[in-house]
Amino acid sequence: MANTNQVFIAIIGVGGVGKCFLNQLKSLAARKPSPKLNLCYISTSRKALYNDDYSEVNMEGVVDTLAASSKAPLALPKIVDYLAAAPAKAILVDNTSSQDVADLYPLALSRGVSIVTPNKKAFSGSYQLWQDIFTAAATSGAKVYHESSVGAGLPVISTLKDLVETGDRVTKIEGVFSGTMSFLFNSFAPTQGRGGAWSDEVKKAKSLGYTEPDPRDDLNGLDVARKLTILARLAGLQVESPTAFPVQSLIPKELESCSSGDEFLEKLPAFDKQMEETKAEAAREGKVVRFVGSIDVGANKVKVGLEKFDPSHPIAALKGSDNIISFYTERYGSNPLIVQGAGAGGEVTAMGVTGDLIKVVAQM
Amino acid sequence: MANTNQVFIAIIGVGGVGKCFLNQLKSLAARKPSPKLNLCYISTSRKALYNDDYSEVNMEGVVDTLAASSKAPLALPKIVDYLAAAPAKAILVDNTSSQDVADLYPLALSRGVSIVTPNKKAFSGSYQLWQDIFTAAATSGAKVYHESSVGAGLPVISTLKDLVETGDRVTKIEGVFSGTMSFLFNSFAPTQGRGGAWSDEVKKAKSLGYTEPDPRDDLNGLDVARKLTILARLAGLQVESPTAFPVQSLIPKELESCSSGDEFLEKLPAFDKQMEETKAEAAREGKVVRFVGSIDVGANKVKVGLEKFDPSHPIAALKGSDNIISFYTERYGSNPLIVQGAGAGGEVTAMGVTGDLIKVVAQM
Repeated sequence: MANTNQVFIAIIGVGGVGKCFLNQLKSLAARKPSPKLNLCYISTSRKALYNDDYSEVNMEGVVDTLAASSKAPLALPKIVDYLAAAPAKAILVDNTSSQDVADLYPLALSRGVSIVTPNKKAFSGSYQLWQDIFTAAATSGAKVYHESSVGAGLPVISTLKDLVETGDRVTKIEGVFSGTMSFLFNSFAPTQGRGGAWSDEVKKAKSLGYTEPDPRDDLNGLDVARKLTILARLAGLQVESPTAFPVQSLIPKELESCSSGDEFLEKLPAFDKQMEETKAEAAREGKVVRFVGSIDVGANKVKVGLEKFDPSHPIAALKGSDNIISFYTERYGSNPLIVQGAGAGGEVTAMGVTGDLIKVVAQM
Repeated sequence: MANTNQVFIAIIGVGGVGKCFLNQLKSLAARKPSPKLNLCYISTSRKALYNDDYSEVNMEGVVDTLAASSKAPLALPKIVDYLAAAPAKAILVDNTSSQDVADLYPLALSRGVSIVTPNKKAFSGSYQLWQDIFTAAATSGAKVYHESSVGAGLPVISTLKDLVETGDRVTKIEGVFSGTMSFLFNSFAPTQGRGGAWSDEVKKAKSLGYTEPDPRDDLNGLDVARKLTILARLAGLQVESPTAFPVQSLIPKELESCSSGDEFLEKLPAFDKQMEETKAEAAREGKVVRFVGSIDVGANKVKVGLEKFDPSHPIAALKGSDNIISFYTERYGSNPLIVQGAGAGGEVTAMGVTGDLIKVVAQM
């Protein structure tokens, strides 16, 4: 029945990553004529473009066409109905960070619709959702790929899966998993020189676009905790949720109740002394502080927070907003397998999504 | 016609990597019941095990059974005939470093037999062979995967392919591509301390099993040149052969004619002064020497040889026999995507082969 020479693609989300992905998809579709990649649905939270007969949505200028569209998006379960009824196999590309879309994955997968996404929510929410997703995929044979949910386009998820699937035993994973935290600490506590006041560095990072609109969404550590949850589960640990292990928040208790990010930034300088003392304590040992996450697989322990490192340690020597992820395994012994590079940004995040799409299409 | 619920596997080569691969394959076959991985042929250069009716070769104790076998291996083109006629799709795993086996790939691929291999010869020989291989694969749809041909199981080939296929522009690749050279220079010119005499370090590396039986096979730079040839071609350069660009040999001219590795090692101390001077020259600039390879894609330049690095540079700070590979691309900007870790050894090399096998099977 199915036409194996084409694949239907639906995209939800046309933000920073979504726009970069669209450009990459356009080039890919032009370069790889077979199977034909047929964009059949695209939506923001308020608008959509699709045709009931699955005829192709023109990728040329699609962001503008979508903004001018008078169609509302389909309700989420209706998108699954639409894709499951397509005349060839379909892939749903979720370029949102929405929990609602993530909750849809088990239904989509159970009906044979594959998922490609940078959205962390599905894989770092409840363990029940994680199980539902992978059970649905295993049963139907549909694929779910999410390279960019950790470290953007860096080969992190794929490497961990390769290690596990080929039978290696991962003993420990550690690293810097947030571009924002990387930038903040590389500036605040550089390996050479003094660095600025903590609140100044936070403001600088925000003005450069390195933080979320409200910087507390980075400083509370939850973003890193979500990434650690995903990696720990892939390494075989049954982590219940990203709040089921110790996560150090860099938001002073007294500022948790601020009503806005702006109020928070205004009041932050009064707490610079705390961070300065943390930096000075590390300096007295000849070290620098960094915000890291670690997974001790044997001891079943996951944690996120500040740690001290020798300036020559690869984690201390990181630059800009780079991520670094070290995999310690039985085969690799005392010297870990390390992946390092930009772990945020539209183009490199979209690259992970496009790479996943290519791999899923190759299996269709 | 084909039974899609099984895949036939043929293995040539049961050396260090081959034995580790067999163990990984046995675990994989036991863990993943579908599709069934059916070992139908296995051979060394002198013996083979296979059944004309394709019934399974028992993986339990297969190395001993093979050693005791009275069957000779099939002639190479006959192996292709045998696999192409199998009642389901087949994968040829080439765990040799043989040029003869490599020359067989175009025929195998053209007849629908996929290839998985750590053998560098096919991808770093003549550009004609490279073209024949990928043309045959594109035409028949059979797959050819060779992750372990560079950096053993490290995600090097897969990362470069992802970058290129998603439309990034790779501008430069540089790194340490030989575990032997890494070990030698990390000991001879450490970032801290003095290091031993060059000839002593070479002897130590040989006694630890870090070199080829004849250390000249590492010191001539050809192994690194082959790896650079593969990466340069994947990045889009038409490199004719591994001798088509400058490769610095660390074999003194006077010792090129030694009749054996032992004679070479005996005479090497007389040339320690040359290497000592190279080290001292770097030290006067506050640097250390390392044996690296680099590909400048824009300038179409590939080279292999000694270079000087600041002790804080990631290439200088490498440990043990680790490899490091840095990808500079348009998307990643000034901070490269870096992959680092053990680039040699039976288990990690076999891991790359097993990982490739899993990916090829998933596409069948």
